[in-house]
Amino acid sequence: MAGESGKLQVFWYPHSQPSRAVVIFCRMNKIEYEEVHISIPTGAHKTPEYLNINPMGQVPAINDNGFSLFESAAILKYLSASRGTPDHWYPKDLKLRARVDCFLDWHISNTRRGASGLVYNQVVAALVGDSLNPKAAAEGKALLVKSLGILDDFWCKEGPFLCGAEEVSIADLVISCELTQLKMLDDSEESELLAPWKNVTKWFQAVKAATNPVFDEVHGKFYASNNQLKEAKLKATTEQS
Amino acid sequence: MAGESGKLQVFWYPHSQPSRAVVIFCRMNKIEYEEVHISIPTGAHKTPEYLNINPMGQVPAINDNGFSLFESAAILKYLSASRGTPDHWYPKDLKLRARVDCFLDWHISNTRRGASGLVYNQVVAALVGDSLNPKAAAEGKALLVKSLGILDDFWCKEGPFLCGAEEVSIADLVISCELTQLKMLDDSEESELLAPWKNVTKWFQAVKAATNPVFDEVHGKFYASNNQLKEAKLKATTEQS
Repeated sequence: MAGESGKLQVFWYPHSQPSRAVVIFCRMNKIEYEEVHISIPTGAHKTPEYLNINPMGQVPAINDNGFSLFESAAILKYLSASRGTPDHWYPKDLKLRARVDCFLDWHISNTRRGASGLVYNQVVAALVGDSLNPKAAAEGKALLVKSLGILDDFWCKEGPFLCGAEEVSIADLVISCELTQLKMLDDSEESELLAPWKNVTKWFQAVKAATNPVFDEVHGKFYASNNQLKEAKLKATTEQS
Repeated sequence: MAGESGKLQVFWYPHSQPSRAVVIFCRMNKIEYEEVHISIPTGAHKTPEYLNINPMGQVPAINDNGFSLFESAAILKYLSASRGTPDHWYPKDLKLRARVDCFLDWHISNTRRGASGLVYNQVVAALVGDSLNPKAAAEGKALLVKSLGILDDFWCKEGPFLCGAEEVSIADLVISCELTQLKMLDDSEESELLAPWKNVTKWFQAVKAATNPVFDEVHGKFYASNNQLKEAKLKATTEQS
């Protein structure tokens, strides 16, 4: 999977929330790079060629002229430093940076684990030939609700961005792409999960305002195929009733 | 919880694996700091005073002259930078640093989630008045075994330290303290989990050699009280039989 004359390659799949965060970052910062679509449904993430880039067989990953890296937060930090992106994305100030690091680590065990546990076990599993798992989905939902409470009451409290930052950072990017994944649930459940949190709602609007039109462009394929899935499901339900 | 004339405070509990990693780091680097013991069994982590330091009510956390921070990896990165510790702990070279970041993020969702899920649901829950959960313990164990395989085959393969580093880093520190937590299991189960992995065994020895006597000193209270617990359990089993 050699890139065009050493150009940075970003391996991604639009339905992967951390993939979207990395692609938004690259596009917003006009980083010179090549997008490589890794089709999860056809198993492109399990080919020997791709496992050579990311032995975990997950997206996103990058290949920067022979240096391969995975884990979205690590990629975003590496790109911030190696491409010298504006400071607000990953501040050099030690305390501001520590807060971003702290949030991103907290996110992995809380919002990420909760949201992905819910969405995978309630929706995605059936699409990839795995079994739905209502108990695991319920556990994910409980963790997600608890995490959203902390997000509202702590991380988003000061605003406008996470940790009271004045400008958008990689922390905002990572979690906002995680929360858009809730669109895979029924509309009523997505709304039931997100609507109660006033600080989260305000913060989410601020992130979209700061990152659009790129945010919506990068989410385009995900939104479109997700809407198709929902329409097909509705049709099937209507035909059955 | 104001520190002595602004001295760095490290809030920790010896049975907390990430706490031990932070304390080992501070002692090895001769950082000027004060250890504050947060007794989890007596609920010291849930007092309003401590929640003011760490709203998540977990250990470790630090208070650096009014700046409070939690999440062990974020603390270690912050201390590396703010105290100017030797480069090998958290390399400034962008690619070496990215590998450490990548490992630490991977660890949260894999070795950490697996090991703590197993140990908590099989042993710790009963000690803190929670219910043991054999199913959750089994899920944790399965994830841990898978993760140890990846640790052996990928992260420890090049050696002597994680990611092929020549010297010990915060990544080695964090996961080695996680793996000592397996001592809370029966000796035979700990051995069954760790013994098959030759690269992991060699790496673990290298980490202890690079960090002792501090590594064992910081583990002292944990080892001692864990041995007491095991002896009490053995005595109860013998008396029952």
